[in-house]
Amino acid sequence: MVNIGFIKMGNLGMSQVINLIQDEIAAREGITVRVCGTGAKMGPDDAAYTESFKQWDADFVIIISPNAAAPGPTAARELWKDKPCIVVSDGPTKKDARQALEDEGFGYIILPVDPLIGAKREFLDPVEMASFNADAMKVLSLCGVVRLIQEEFDKVADQVNAGKSGKDLELPHIFAKPEKCVEHGGFANPYAKAKALAALHMAEKVAQVNFPACFMLKDIEQVCLATATGHEIMGAAAVLATQAREIEKSNDTVFRQPHAKDGTLLTKTKLYEKPQ
Amino acid sequence: MVNIGFIKMGNLGMSQVINLIQDEIAAREGITVRVCGTGAKMGPDDAAYTESFKQWDADFVIIISPNAAAPGPTAARELWKDKPCIVVSDGPTKKDARQALEDEGFGYIILPVDPLIGAKREFLDPVEMASFNADAMKVLSLCGVVRLIQEEFDKVADQVNAGKSGKDLELPHIFAKPEKCVEHGGFANPYAKAKALAALHMAEKVAQVNFPACFMLKDIEQVCLATATGHEIMGAAAVLATQAREIEKSNDTVFRQPHAKDGTLLTKTKLYEKPQ
Amino acid sequence: MVNIGFIKMGNLGMSQVINLIQDEIAAREGITVRVCGTGAKMGPDDAAYTESFKQWDADFVIIISPNAAAPGPTAARELWKDKPCIVVSDGPTKKDARQALEDEGFGYIILPVDPLIGAKREFLDPVEMASFNADAMKVLSLCGVVRLIQEEFDKVADQVNAGKSGKDLELPHIFAKPEKCVEHGGFANPYAKAKALAALHMAEKVAQVNFPACFMLKDIEQVCLATATGHEIMGAAAVLATQAREIEKSNDTVFRQPHAKDGTLLTKTKLYEKPQ
Amino acid sequence: MVNIGFIKMGNLGMSQVINLIQDEIAAREGITVRVCGTGAKMGPDDAAYTESFKQWDADFVIIISPNAAAPGPTAARELWKDKPCIVVSDGPTKKDARQALEDEGFGYIILPVDPLIGAKREFLDPVEMASFNADAMKVLSLCGVVRLIQEEFDKVADQVNAGKSGKDLELPHIFAKPEKCVEHGGFANPYAKAKALAALHMAEKVAQVNFPACFMLKDIEQVCLATATGHEIMGAAAVLATQAREIEKSNDTVFRQPHAKDGTLLTKTKLYEKPQ
Amino acid sequence: MVNIGFIKMGNLGMSQVINLIQDEIAAREGITVRVCGTGAKMGPDDAAYTESFKQWDADFVIIISPNAAAPGPTAARELWKDKPCIVVSDGPTKKDARQALEDEGFGYIILPVDPLIGAKREFLDPVEMASFNADAMKVLSLCGVVRLIQEEFDKVADQVNAGKSGKDLELPHIFAKPEKCVEHGGFANPYAKAKALAALHMAEKVAQVNFPACFMLKDIEQVCLATATGHEIMGAAAVLATQAREIEKSNDTVFRQPHAKDGTLLTKTKLYEKPQ
Amino acid sequence: MVNIGFIKMGNLGMSQVINLIQDEIAAREGITVRVCGTGAKMGPDDAAYTESFKQWDADFVIIISPNAAAPGPTAARELWKDKPCIVVSDGPTKKDARQALEDEGFGYIILPVDPLIGAKREFLDPVEMASFNADAMKVLSLCGVVRLIQEEFDKVADQVNAGKSGKDLELPHIFAKPEKCVEHGGFANPYAKAKALAALHMAEKVAQVNFPACFMLKDIEQVCLATATGHEIMGAAAVLATQAREIEKSNDTVFRQPHAKDGTLLTKTKLYEKPQ
Repeated sequence: MVNIGFIKMGNLGMSQVINLIQDEIAAREGITVRVCGTGAKMGPDDAAYTESFKQWDADFVIIISPNAAAPGPTAARELWKDKPCIVVSDGPTKKDARQALEDEGFGYIILPVDPLIGAKREFLDPVEMASFNADAMKVLSLCGVVRLIQEEFDKVADQVNAGKSGKDLELPHIFAKPEKCVEHGGFANPYAKAKALAALHMAEKVAQVNFPACFMLKDIEQVCLATATGHEIMGAAAVLATQAREIEKSNDTVFRQPHAKDGTLLTKTKLYEKPQ
Repeated sequence: MVNIGFIKMGNLGMSQVINLIQDEIAAREGITVRVCGTGAKMGPDDAAYTESFKQWDADFVIIISPNAAAPGPTAARELWKDKPCIVVSDGPTKKDARQALEDEGFGYIILPVDPLIGAKREFLDPVEMASFNADAMKVLSLCGVVRLIQEEFDKVADQVNAGKSGKDLELPHIFAKPEKCVEHGGFANPYAKAKALAALHMAEKVAQVNFPACFMLKDIEQVCLATATGHEIMGAAAVLATQAREIEKSNDTVFRQPHAKDGTLLTKTKLYEKPQ
Repeated sequence: MVNIGFIKMGNLGMSQVINLIQDEIAAREGITVRVCGTGAKMGPDDAAYTESFKQWDADFVIIISPNAAAPGPTAARELWKDKPCIVVSDGPTKKDARQALEDEGFGYIILPVDPLIGAKREFLDPVEMASFNADAMKVLSLCGVVRLIQEEFDKVADQVNAGKSGKDLELPHIFAKPEKCVEHGGFANPYAKAKALAALHMAEKVAQVNFPACFMLKDIEQVCLATATGHEIMGAAAVLATQAREIEKSNDTVFRQPHAKDGTLLTKTKLYEKPQ
Repeated sequence: MVNIGFIKMGNLGMSQVINLIQDEIAAREGITVRVCGTGAKMGPDDAAYTESFKQWDADFVIIISPNAAAPGPTAARELWKDKPCIVVSDGPTKKDARQALEDEGFGYIILPVDPLIGAKREFLDPVEMASFNADAMKVLSLCGVVRLIQEEFDKVADQVNAGKSGKDLELPHIFAKPEKCVEHGGFANPYAKAKALAALHMAEKVAQVNFPACFMLKDIEQVCLATATGHEIMGAAAVLATQAREIEKSNDTVFRQPHAKDGTLLTKTKLYEKPQ
Repeated sequence: MVNIGFIKMGNLGMSQVINLIQDEIAAREGITVRVCGTGAKMGPDDAAYTESFKQWDADFVIIISPNAAAPGPTAARELWKDKPCIVVSDGPTKKDARQALEDEGFGYIILPVDPLIGAKREFLDPVEMASFNADAMKVLSLCGVVRLIQEEFDKVADQVNAGKSGKDLELPHIFAKPEKCVEHGGFANPYAKAKALAALHMAEKVAQVNFPACFMLKDIEQVCLATATGHEIMGAAAVLATQAREIEKSNDTVFRQPHAKDGTLLTKTKLYEKPQ
Repeated sequence: MVNIGFIKMGNLGMSQVINLIQDEIAAREGITVRVCGTGAKMGPDDAAYTESFKQWDADFVIIISPNAAAPGPTAARELWKDKPCIVVSDGPTKKDARQALEDEGFGYIILPVDPLIGAKREFLDPVEMASFNADAMKVLSLCGVVRLIQEEFDKVADQVNAGKSGKDLELPHIFAKPEKCVEHGGFANPYAKAKALAALHMAEKVAQVNFPACFMLKDIEQVCLATATGHEIMGAAAVLATQAREIEKSNDTVFRQPHAKDGTLLTKTKLYEKPQ
């Protein structure tokens, strides 16, 4: 039995399904998942709350939040540093900061392709927030990011199954740039792959548009125009991701990797094929 | 300060963002959200785990899971019946069963429009699962479901703020059929509303297609064709939902309801308008 | 020479082309088609008029109308019961009622996938009516329904050519559910087939939305919203059907079954292939 | 009571619904419609059959067929010349030939915009035929043709109601070029109108592409490429027509003209408006 | 070294890139291109200016303009008749006029598929003009026209390289009807080819719509509606051209013909293939 | 009379129509445009050739090329520095380099939104090149860039008309970032504006993807994937630009600025409006 703990602080696109991707049809044996979340907030107080999650004995823990360098996630890591711990976040994107995480013993998967939402009250309401996250998930799922993460977590779970634990677990250290993500997309058609890669680049671009809106612009027209623009880019990225999938469907070459009951990764490509 | 607890067992489309919609830009004061989740699984063991979540003193709790009548969610309700508790699920859809929930003191929001995924290993892998959830979220967000839920939770939070607690809290009892959901969509254009309503009906239809695939069909071709069909309907529903939104955008009539810092629901319609 | 008579009372989507599909380029020898129609009306008076059609000596007759259980179509069957007669309609969908038709000696092809139009003066004008029928025909043609019917009629015509007549003719008894129809779509790509099947399910769903609008709702906003919604679902179904066809075109695998001059069904798949 | 007879020989796009457009919800009083059809064929023998239709006493008759100058339709007119008779066809398009029709006492509505199908066995099967007719009907309905014809027939029916009959009835003489048709489209937005007009021009263009395929080309690749091209143009025209409608929907300016119970033409524009 | 001179008078869609297609990545050796243009105007004065271009010693010259029969282009040909000269234009389309060009020693490529813009001040501004040219270029590039011209110019350049010059150069005499152009599209899928051919026919149709608007209509509504219609047809043609390309991409069969450094035409088909 | 000279070296998206936008229907009096181009090449030799263009007495000159800092364009500026000269290019984007241009007396319009093509023989052939330029032109025209440039050139032409010349002419110094360009788009709907701004950001992003492909990557798969990706982003940008325009069309708010015969900029908004 592998126990995987998820600590969710604030929200990334990937936060929506990250605790489901080891067990997509809820039929995998030998795995237990528990989640401790702090909602939209991710401050030091929220970090402190996660202490309570230690009662459950996770073999390893994933801490997912925006900007892992922020005070809250940093506080959480301080609390959890004795557990094998994988940081999933959209930053830090700087090499040094990532190296520092590794040096402190953390695994990480940094996702510059998980798009920064236009988090301004002038624009974002619950509906717009959820709709943006749907676009984000389209790109993250169809362009390789979901599979990259799932494979990395499976590798760690496999180590636990093999008897490893604690500091002996090898954790991932991945800076998931568009080019890296798309390699996990399983595309057979090169233009589908190019569309997926384009979608990932566009998702990454969203931050460049939304960042000034979130943190610098004051004028309401500028804020609303910039965030609306960021969300349009994300919508266009979701369309491209969908087109990529449709190409693979039109060729009956959708690559699928379901988990067997025992957790083995099966694969199949043709729709009517049995996963093996 | 209002403390809202979310217990997530298994996954609904709505599970992805339900704990974020009270605080969409993470800047609302006077509210604390904590989440306890059990991943994809929702059995009685998973229910038992949620006991640990009682350490945190929620003013009210939301239990979200597929099929609230299943053993796990039922066990969870047994554990949590002394707390003010709102059940969010895609079933039971029968009136008697819903009445029974109410009689036991639970609030509920039953969402037949939260689509049943094609949960068969022959078809569903983590990527397909996440992609389907993105389509589900497009419909749930843009067609009124997210706002309906957000408003109901806000009403309960307002009661807590007003000093009520425990059994005195009035909880929602809502069977969220398509026609009810779409009224919360805020549509100014009637054809946009019709498209949104069509999307909700289609989302509801998905269960009719995926149910036999999940629970009755054995032949691999039948299973794969049926689940692929269910997911195509969901994809088409997401397209319609997006078209509905685009119409409102083309008229600059997108209705938005962001939360003010103090939790008040503001509204705005024109993009460059200040929320009030 | 085979004489096929068509009696059209009221209008189904399928009524538009049903008398053309045995002879699509008007070059088939050995077949004569005559049509007797009563326009949009389908009452007992209209049924009585069809008596005049008996002057022409049909080998078998197709009676197509909405709701075969309604008084008019029932009266027409009473008049025509001595002829070999195939009922084409969107109902009855109940098994007993279909069995009763068979017991009375009628053949039938019941099409729950032929969508119920939003027949309310508040919404439907001649333009909307014709446009809806175009969407219906897209789905009926591309998703297997047209071919299913054409094949069944050809089978009966072949019996006539083989010398059979009257009660000796074996007539079809088919409840054409989406799953059955799509098998006649000739799809080579399984995702195209899934899209087509999705379109058929959506077409069937239309009745659930339009039925209350046609027969129960009174409030003009509710009537107009419901019928507009039904027509949106149908429009989305037509889009899916078209996508299914486009996939087959992109693979040059469109299955075609033209009639030879002598009525033989030829087949071809690649566009530049000669039908054989 | 007005009796309107429809004689259908062969098939035009418009043939599919022409007998329905006076009575779109089958609730108009004071009108009786009867149809006599000869299926896909339109030869002199087929014309002769229509003699039997004289038993029913029509106040006026519509003869619809492709190419009214062909022997069959010409023979039919000879038979029916003593009745008030309106010819609906895609030709003759030459002015002299149309004048000749008028001189012989016939009314006519010539529709160069009703597209010539790619009627070659190498390409057309029943499915392709029906699908093409769906595209044709999209353009004919949404771009003004259906309404033009409906209004003209209503004018004649009104004369009958006013006591006129036989040679005293004023019949339409209309050469329905794209520019004329689109004026009946009821468009409020000028770009929607331009899209509709574009669709009509494209529908007219189809004949130029399909005519050589139908009557001159022999090489199978040339025939299949030309007919496939003609059908692509028609498909693109249907898309434009749909876009035109969507624009009007997005502005809630869809013009509708339903018939009242007594046959009066009502009008409405906003979806929730009562027709008046 | 081959010197190719381009004289551009006024603007065709093809004018935009005609001087680039021999050297698409600007890395071809042994070729020099020079351009002399007169902007949007194409009168006799503009023709006179091109005299100055004679200082540069072109091996052959392309004169591209709308309507080669107009006074300006005619004057230009008079000036340049002693040079090997290829006329590229959208007319004359009459055989005699083309023969006359050939008899006078000119090569020509007449492009009825290069669409006539809606050149009326009431409709066209610089933005609309540029946007229309983008649509034109989509069709010209993806449907075979660009490649046809490039191949013809390469043939002449090859003759120069082989030592021929002046009157000894064999110049093209091509009336580039849709059917001819599409053969240069390099399509592997026949439906993609049909879509491309449809796009070319539609581009040709544009002139029929815009010609009366440019030269005959006076009423501002008629002018604006007609030109808007012409541009809608062109937009729809661009969509079809793009769809044709997308089909080829979905099959990884995009045919490409880049120039090698030495000017040889290489070919490749699969995206990851090396051009050979 | 104003004489405007265009020197085109190599190709930008904007190069395609830059010499047409002062005189979009070729009916403006008082302006003469002449063009001197060097085809796809832009080396020092090509620059030297432009010397010949001095024979024609331009009032001011536009030098358009990619990367104005490259040796060829630099050499051209050296030759032309005594003329009033406006540099149009996609770079330099650094502030210092732009200041240097200004200090040397040049005007400039730097367009980081004019996308860098994937100029690798392994991917780009004449067809792909032209198709990419069509996408570029869609964005440049519909999102404000064409109008920005047209207005700036008109301002200089107006100065010439007012009697100014040579060093007295005030030339533009504009770094045309997406936010600046979109202000010239004339959008009435803010979501249309956001889509246009998104398209411009995406066009700018293309360079980031294509630059390594053009100058750093060697592996053929990497080169082809990267360039195909860049072109997909550009294609998606063109789609967004078109959507922006369609929104304005759906509201009949397309802003147009045609030139009057005398060169005055007229404006109009509703399609049937007379420009004033």
